[in-house]
Amino acid sequence: MSQPDQYKYFNITFPPEHEHVAHVEINRPAKLNAFIEAMWLELSEIFTHLSTSPSVRAIVLSGAGPKAFTAGLDVHAASQGLLSPSTTNDPQDPARKATHLRRHVLSFQSCISSLERCEKPIVVAMHGFALGLAVDISVTADVRVCAADTRFAVKEVDIGLAADIGTLSRLPKVVGTFGWVKEVCLTGRIFGAEEALRVGFVSRVWEDKEAAVRGALELAGVMAGKSPVAVQGTKELLNWSRDRRVEDGLRYTAVWNSAALQTKDVEAALLSGIQKRKPTFEKL
Amino acid sequence: MSQPDQYKYFNITFPPEHEHVAHVEINRPAKLNAFIEAMWLELSEIFTHLSTSPSVRAIVLSGAGPKAFTAGLDVHAASQGLLSPSTTNDPQDPARKATHLRRHVLSFQSCISSLERCEKPIVVAMHGFALGLAVDISVTADVRVCAADTRFAVKEVDIGLAADIGTLSRLPKVVGTFGWVKEVCLTGRIFGAEEALRVGFVSRVWEDKEAAVRGALELAGVMAGKSPVAVQGTKELLNWSRDRRVEDGLRYTAVWNSAALQTKDVEAALLSGIQKRKPTFEKL
Amino acid sequence: MSQPDQYKYFNITFPPEHEHVAHVEINRPAKLNAFIEAMWLELSEIFTHLSTSPSVRAIVLSGAGPKAFTAGLDVHAASQGLLSPSTTNDPQDPARKATHLRRHVLSFQSCISSLERCEKPIVVAMHGFALGLAVDISVTADVRVCAADTRFAVKEVDIGLAADIGTLSRLPKVVGTFGWVKEVCLTGRIFGAEEALRVGFVSRVWEDKEAAVRGALELAGVMAGKSPVAVQGTKELLNWSRDRRVEDGLRYTAVWNSAALQTKDVEAALLSGIQKRKPTFEKL
Amino acid sequence: MSQPDQYKYFNITFPPEHEHVAHVEINRPAKLNAFIEAMWLELSEIFTHLSTSPSVRAIVLSGAGPKAFTAGLDVHAASQGLLSPSTTNDPQDPARKATHLRRHVLSFQSCISSLERCEKPIVVAMHGFALGLAVDISVTADVRVCAADTRFAVKEVDIGLAADIGTLSRLPKVVGTFGWVKEVCLTGRIFGAEEALRVGFVSRVWEDKEAAVRGALELAGVMAGKSPVAVQGTKELLNWSRDRRVEDGLRYTAVWNSAALQTKDVEAALLSGIQKRKPTFEKL
Amino acid sequence: MSQPDQYKYFNITFPPEHEHVAHVEINRPAKLNAFIEAMWLELSEIFTHLSTSPSVRAIVLSGAGPKAFTAGLDVHAASQGLLSPSTTNDPQDPARKATHLRRHVLSFQSCISSLERCEKPIVVAMHGFALGLAVDISVTADVRVCAADTRFAVKEVDIGLAADIGTLSRLPKVVGTFGWVKEVCLTGRIFGAEEALRVGFVSRVWEDKEAAVRGALELAGVMAGKSPVAVQGTKELLNWSRDRRVEDGLRYTAVWNSAALQTKDVEAALLSGIQKRKPTFEKL
Amino acid sequence: MSQPDQYKYFNITFPPEHEHVAHVEINRPAKLNAFIEAMWLELSEIFTHLSTSPSVRAIVLSGAGPKAFTAGLDVHAASQGLLSPSTTNDPQDPARKATHLRRHVLSFQSCISSLERCEKPIVVAMHGFALGLAVDISVTADVRVCAADTRFAVKEVDIGLAADIGTLSRLPKVVGTFGWVKEVCLTGRIFGAEEALRVGFVSRVWEDKEAAVRGALELAGVMAGKSPVAVQGTKELLNWSRDRRVEDGLRYTAVWNSAALQTKDVEAALLSGIQKRKPTFEKL
Repeated sequence: MSQPDQYKYFNITFPPEHEHVAHVEINRPAKLNAFIEAMWLELSEIFTHLSTSPSVRAIVLSGAGPKAFTAGLDVHAASQGLLSPSTTNDPQDPARKATHLRRHVLSFQSCISSLERCEKPIVVAMHGFALGLAVDISVTADVRVCAADTRFAVKEVDIGLAADIGTLSRLPKVVGTFGWVKEVCLTGRIFGAEEALRVGFVSRVWEDKEAAVRGALELAGVMAGKSPVAVQGTKELLNWSRDRRVEDGLRYTAVWNSAALQTKDVEAALLSGIQKRKPTFEKL
Repeated sequence: MSQPDQYKYFNITFPPEHEHVAHVEINRPAKLNAFIEAMWLELSEIFTHLSTSPSVRAIVLSGAGPKAFTAGLDVHAASQGLLSPSTTNDPQDPARKATHLRRHVLSFQSCISSLERCEKPIVVAMHGFALGLAVDISVTADVRVCAADTRFAVKEVDIGLAADIGTLSRLPKVVGTFGWVKEVCLTGRIFGAEEALRVGFVSRVWEDKEAAVRGALELAGVMAGKSPVAVQGTKELLNWSRDRRVEDGLRYTAVWNSAALQTKDVEAALLSGIQKRKPTFEKL
Repeated sequence: MSQPDQYKYFNITFPPEHEHVAHVEINRPAKLNAFIEAMWLELSEIFTHLSTSPSVRAIVLSGAGPKAFTAGLDVHAASQGLLSPSTTNDPQDPARKATHLRRHVLSFQSCISSLERCEKPIVVAMHGFALGLAVDISVTADVRVCAADTRFAVKEVDIGLAADIGTLSRLPKVVGTFGWVKEVCLTGRIFGAEEALRVGFVSRVWEDKEAAVRGALELAGVMAGKSPVAVQGTKELLNWSRDRRVEDGLRYTAVWNSAALQTKDVEAALLSGIQKRKPTFEKL
Repeated sequence: MSQPDQYKYFNITFPPEHEHVAHVEINRPAKLNAFIEAMWLELSEIFTHLSTSPSVRAIVLSGAGPKAFTAGLDVHAASQGLLSPSTTNDPQDPARKATHLRRHVLSFQSCISSLERCEKPIVVAMHGFALGLAVDISVTADVRVCAADTRFAVKEVDIGLAADIGTLSRLPKVVGTFGWVKEVCLTGRIFGAEEALRVGFVSRVWEDKEAAVRGALELAGVMAGKSPVAVQGTKELLNWSRDRRVEDGLRYTAVWNSAALQTKDVEAALLSGIQKRKPTFEKL
Repeated sequence: MSQPDQYKYFNITFPPEHEHVAHVEINRPAKLNAFIEAMWLELSEIFTHLSTSPSVRAIVLSGAGPKAFTAGLDVHAASQGLLSPSTTNDPQDPARKATHLRRHVLSFQSCISSLERCEKPIVVAMHGFALGLAVDISVTADVRVCAADTRFAVKEVDIGLAADIGTLSRLPKVVGTFGWVKEVCLTGRIFGAEEALRVGFVSRVWEDKEAAVRGALELAGVMAGKSPVAVQGTKELLNWSRDRRVEDGLRYTAVWNSAALQTKDVEAALLSGIQKRKPTFEKL
Repeated sequence: MSQPDQYKYFNITFPPEHEHVAHVEINRPAKLNAFIEAMWLELSEIFTHLSTSPSVRAIVLSGAGPKAFTAGLDVHAASQGLLSPSTTNDPQDPARKATHLRRHVLSFQSCISSLERCEKPIVVAMHGFALGLAVDISVTADVRVCAADTRFAVKEVDIGLAADIGTLSRLPKVVGTFGWVKEVCLTGRIFGAEEALRVGFVSRVWEDKEAAVRGALELAGVMAGKSPVAVQGTKELLNWSRDRRVEDGLRYTAVWNSAALQTKDVEAALLSGIQKRKPTFEKL
């Protein structure tokens, strides 16, 4: 991370006004930030690195340019590659083709899941087009906010396939109203910022992109100001519990905290609470 | 399905303006569409058939007559049968009686679950009374809409029993606010269309029954116009993921799509997208 | 329960206008009802007792005094005990310390979980401060209501720890919008009654504490007037199903009801329905 | 069951020396009892019927003729049907073909699973060839015994496919040594009666087919002589617990027995124990 | 534990030749150690206490007198109480009766499960009669050994009920050959020490009771000589993993060991290994 | 893989007499093949590569030199690194230390799990010392064989820790007799080849190392001669089913095979069966 310009498709900056916050920006605005394979490989590399980078305590993800968070998969590239007619017409053994497709999907999924595996909280700030893969990516994050002009769609059904990079597995766990999830996934229709807010897909709508990114950075800044032992434990325990029974969540929490409660951050937090000052915490 | 009038308690029609959409109507309006055993057996037969019927790609379920989607279980019939005092006072061995009751409930559940097992998406359009079994049925569907006059209730608690045909297992997975679910199930109170919309139990409220059915047919028509490979995969993957962990959802999705991505529908969808025309897809 | 004044930190009353309803009040108003260990031990004893007490069919939990439902863990006591600097600086073997902390957390969790294990429905009425442990406690209940002045926070992150008494395991199962859950848990920020209502954390906001408690008692009264076989079965089946797959919920329900459907309450309920009078049910 | 000769491919008899025991015999000896589709449909029909037939309390399954329990799938028929080159070379859309194959496999699995769903205990007596589908079938039963000449194989790998009718899902839950399971499934090699006994796949080896069937009938007779409430509960609870956690097994057991313990069979069994005579139990 | 004679039905001793080992003996030999309710309440109290008693690191459980580990539930007492004809003939509402039976079974199960919840390893040494409840108890332990004269049976089916105190949930997880488990549970037949050894139900058969108890104490002594951090972690992680997926086992293990690896016992063990002497470990 | 000598601690060869079989040899014989971090990183790299290498269809893993498969973790290196007294005495915040330890264990586990993730079957041939990590590694493989001189131990308890690289999660799923698993994990005692065979930990014992490796290569050769579509599907489906319910195993199998059954390998296998010749299969 010493060379923040080392990534081809992403900008990484560390806004001085928000200590310990990293800002990752998808940077292919000429193509509406549409994704090609090199991009999801880079995305995974970045979040895998940030996950254990001691100076980073919260992350914001947004898209460069005025028009789109991301328009999703670069269908032009995909239609010449994986999804090309020649591929689908290839007389190859369907079982062997299935093996290659399965490996491809699993590896693509694993790249996007790097945001969920990232130990630090992630706030996604969306604007403009946020289609297809945009939803797959945003549901791996912890909090979603957007600009008023954002146009969302679970677009995959319109190109003849079921979304397979995470939306179908994660969206029902992020939005509690299953009928709405079914509807947008089965019709592929566009929905806007207000609807996204109403169903709880996003937590807040800002007037424009700048405000959304600024709001996301402030929210991330608040998280980055807390004890990293507490914040990272909270993210892990919420994600673990989401998928399991209450009783399993409780026991895992107790085992986790049996080490975490020994942190000096508790003392630091309690003291600074009494002394009405902002605590500082060791790196993690 | 060649003889659409073969069912005694249900009408099945194929509205010409919505290709590939079947409209199933509960048809016992003189009794507020209340269910007797012959009806749930027929219901299961219908949806089991539609599930693999190649010409059908989406289904609407509604109730005949102006007064009710369904008033639920026909308590009069039940109180002379399964729930009759003579049954509950029968000096029979309670363990043997339990065996018969368990078999009965399991078989009743299995009939209603045929809507969830149905591979095609189902939109339920409700109006008037939608009590007890109405809720059990509607939560097996994918999307719920209703007329402004609909009156819902999880009525079972008022006849001395816990709802056992699916509401208690599925409602908490359809509506994310568990406190509201608890309240309506523990009190049996009536709730109206606006409340149903606010908590996400229904996706849309229409001014009257006709508008609700028309709206449901249009929504089903949109789904039926998409690739059936994509639509049916999406339904299956959402239902699978709802009950399992994200990681299990992701892997099952990858295995599923390893065959589904080999469909020619992807090419058809991409081409028609470029050519700005409506794609046509082979039967499934 | 013959000596309702036997508890030091809780009042238990049986409001005459609501038959079969117990009202449990946290009673340490001078300390904003903040919890010390003796209190959660008592809390557990009370709800374990009420769980099988035949005269009780629904329970309301609220906090004494005008200022707080509960301000949470008594941090002053905790900072001299478990969370004290001397404890965290103790040169003891961290593995042995972890063992003691784990046992402590598991035992604390188990006390609070006594509300979830309680076979009778519980309505929590909150007001004023409802911080930290207040949330852990309230998410074990079935329905939450509050006064307009209530100020909630998942406060733990501010004292350097991940909430470990249940909030992180249960809140995502009580509120469907996971992004909001993440945000309030990762920032520890205050949220008010209106926000709590909007996301579904509470079911209803009343103008003040008195109205909230009165409303909760009325709601509990409605539940207490139904068949206890039906009500207790409904609570159990909803909690079981929340954590498991639909198919497991259905089968467990069928097994449960194979005994419950043999109750005489069905006959009593059906008869009183026909005769338009309030049914009475045997104790349970 | 009044017309025991109504089945084309199976004999059903009720050996007079073993009250309440049904003996089902695969009856296509000229083809080594190899299975065609009509047979698994009949098999399912039989076990679904026996499951709730009150006069039957235990079942033995064996194969007619001296040479084979069953040689498995009738590959000749299959190679002209589902597995035919023309099918695999068919230029049909692989995704649509996958849909048809998936439906076919699920429906085939469901037929074979009817033995596991059958509420009465099943003892399988094998001899001679017991290949491929023979293993899929036998692992759905409760107890397996065989003649000394039995030759087993998980043969599917030799015809280019992974066993999909249940062996791969059930064999690891029937035999505890996973390395042995892996070896026989990955090599398709033949194994004999002694090896099957050593790893616990069968419980007992008899000198020849007649002795094996006789032994199986005696074992089934013992089970049929016990309280059917106890026996059927035991089968259900063991199968439920096999797939779930201990704590889930315990709670389901408690709910199940809350009805079952009310049986008069307990009194009958206790009395006959004191009086040293064989108890008789009501039908179930 | 300061008054080892405080228990009415159990002896607790601390054999001087095996430091940190507690020996618990069922002590009602005149009744073949058959269990009445007071006994399982005491049993639970003892193991709950030993679980966190710092001086105890391993436990042996055996039965007093020459004739029986335990003959199981005291059927005489039970047939006058819970299982009495008057109870089963009581005209009470079967649903209410079911509630009481369920509570009773859950509370009985919870007492016996105290052995599984006990953080210290338990070796059971059995002899003579080991029937019914003997199996429920022994499968909660970590290792089972027995004398050559031991006669086991899952006896419950013979008194008209399905074993509900743990055998049906735990035996299939203790013995890998499911067919054998099914057979002994469905027939209630006696099996001896050699058979128990062959299927892995017991780990070792000794010539008589004295040798079995001595052998168990020696085995417990070996466990008690190891680091208690390592031993107790190993028990917990094996039990957790048994019921869950490999991936869940791995992650829970990593979280557990993140505290446990900080123990000074690692240094002590490594040093004593180098110095070829027996390590000593702090209490836990 | 073009440069088979590129690995520092492993030899990879392709025995000409067994087409499609790779032989991986742990190669640090001077240190009894004890593992340092560079080795498990290499091990993971190798199996991740072999997993999708089209020319490889089965793999054998063994240890170089006459004395050991592997003596486990290089404790000397570990005691100067991760497990060093200075590490355990370090006054660092125990919660932060726990974070680093947890990351370390998870990453170590992930390397070893690469054998389980490898899509090709793996046969492990062990000899001499096979301690600690040797067991963690071998339980990730599909089949285990060994030489008569092999000495196994789950050694971790002897250095003050619970085995955390997989043994505690996988051994109970590989060996069905849980009491034996508990005993060897809680005592750390040595067990030999005969005992390993008896409990099913290994499938076969050969007279010496050469015979064991030769036997393993022959077994792998048999697997490599089958359809890779069938073999790799079988491995995947067995591993998936091991951790899940039968019903989930069945459905996943049906979805998997909906693509796999479209392979030309079925035709090839059936034809070569008829023609009594060895089939050849396309690469995968």
